[in-house]
Amino acid sequence: MEASVEHPYVPRDLKLPGFVPCSLSQSAILLVYGVSSLLVVSLVWLLSGRSPKKSKIDRWLMCWWAFTGLTHMIVEGYFAFSPEFYKDKTGFYLAEVWKEYSKGDSRYAARDAGIVTVEGLTAVLEGPASLLAVFAIATGKSYSYILQFAISLGQLYGTAVYFVTSYLEGDHFAASSYYYYAYYIGANASWIVIPTLISIRCWNKICAAFQIQGQKKAKVR
Amino acid sequence: MEASVEHPYVPRDLKLPGFVPCSLSQSAILLVYGVSSLLVVSLVWLLSGRSPKKSKIDRWLMCWWAFTGLTHMIVEGYFAFSPEFYKDKTGFYLAEVWKEYSKGDSRYAARDAGIVTVEGLTAVLEGPASLLAVFAIATGKSYSYILQFAISLGQLYGTAVYFVTSYLEGDHFAASSYYYYAYYIGANASWIVIPTLISIRCWNKICAAFQIQGQKKAKVR
Repeated sequence: MEASVEHPYVPRDLKLPGFVPCSLSQSAILLVYGVSSLLVVSLVWLLSGRSPKKSKIDRWLMCWWAFTGLTHMIVEGYFAFSPEFYKDKTGFYLAEVWKEYSKGDSRYAARDAGIVTVEGLTAVLEGPASLLAVFAIATGKSYSYILQFAISLGQLYGTAVYFVTSYLEGDHFAASSYYYYAYYIGANASWIVIPTLISIRCWNKICAAFQIQGQKKAKVR
Repeated sequence: MEASVEHPYVPRDLKLPGFVPCSLSQSAILLVYGVSSLLVVSLVWLLSGRSPKKSKIDRWLMCWWAFTGLTHMIVEGYFAFSPEFYKDKTGFYLAEVWKEYSKGDSRYAARDAGIVTVEGLTAVLEGPASLLAVFAIATGKSYSYILQFAISLGQLYGTAVYFVTSYLEGDHFAASSYYYYAYYIGANASWIVIPTLISIRCWNKICAAFQIQGQKKAKVR
């Protein structure tokens, strides 16, 4: 029989048999994520700069879609398909990420069905779609704006489900108010602000395209 | 103390103190919903026919958006904000609807957080947005397609969360396989098929508008 190790999550009565504590420190986890993200963003920024036609905003959007797409596929994809990550003894980085993040929201360790669903949809649909958005912007596809709009709306819907379910269940899943604000609120805030801005921009671009189409039709008549 | 009445839902160990059985029959519930929906659809069809410019497909879409918008706001809106519908003694129609539907998915009576979240978002955001879509099509707004696309995607995301959470929790919420297929599958199927068709149509229309815009820009050069 395995020795029972106490987990650091709230609610305290959550049962996690076989739990193995985090072996990486918070700063090590953040450093790896920060450095890898910076590498991805720098690479996309440099490569996109080769095309003289690309505006700075398009280049920033390509960086965002590469960053968010890889986060969805690798980090969230690992969670969605690893129900026993909290038992990992090897110090595997992605398991450590979710052991640490669960301090801000224990529903991850507890395998809440709503969380797994949202993370699964995000990893499987929005992840690859985000990488497609990098390609669509790079090559100036006509579906570029509607694709970016669709992914952003999916991200916003997922975040809404994430926060509303927690609210309805009593919002008592963080180990302390530090973890509540740093992880539960802080780590998710970008996925509210940026998709909102992108949605508004795409909505306006799409409306403008129909106005031009309308003017063209009027001229043809 | 209230007399304890046994509920007809599965799982059998679900606790619903104060439960009052359905007083309307299944056919009465369906008849009221069917007749009211037919009234709404007929009214929108007739009114939209007054404008000679509207295509048949636009008129059908206006009927759909009026029907789905009112369903979201009235039927699902009632559920989202009535945690104790299963205790209703007055035979109030909307309470009866959800008492009956819970035979296909007891998570409604059990007030599952995922269900309440999806129904709440649907009622509060997609309901009014659907009625706005009727207006947008009627008046030929430039945001007509992107709005229809956004609502359809929201409906599809909500339906995905609805089915995936149930699957992850063991898919054991129907009172019998009749209720499983008639209510859980049957009643939701339209909200997969129709939003999918509308999304594809809007996606194509939006891409076409950007192709025209691209051609126009090329000509200007």
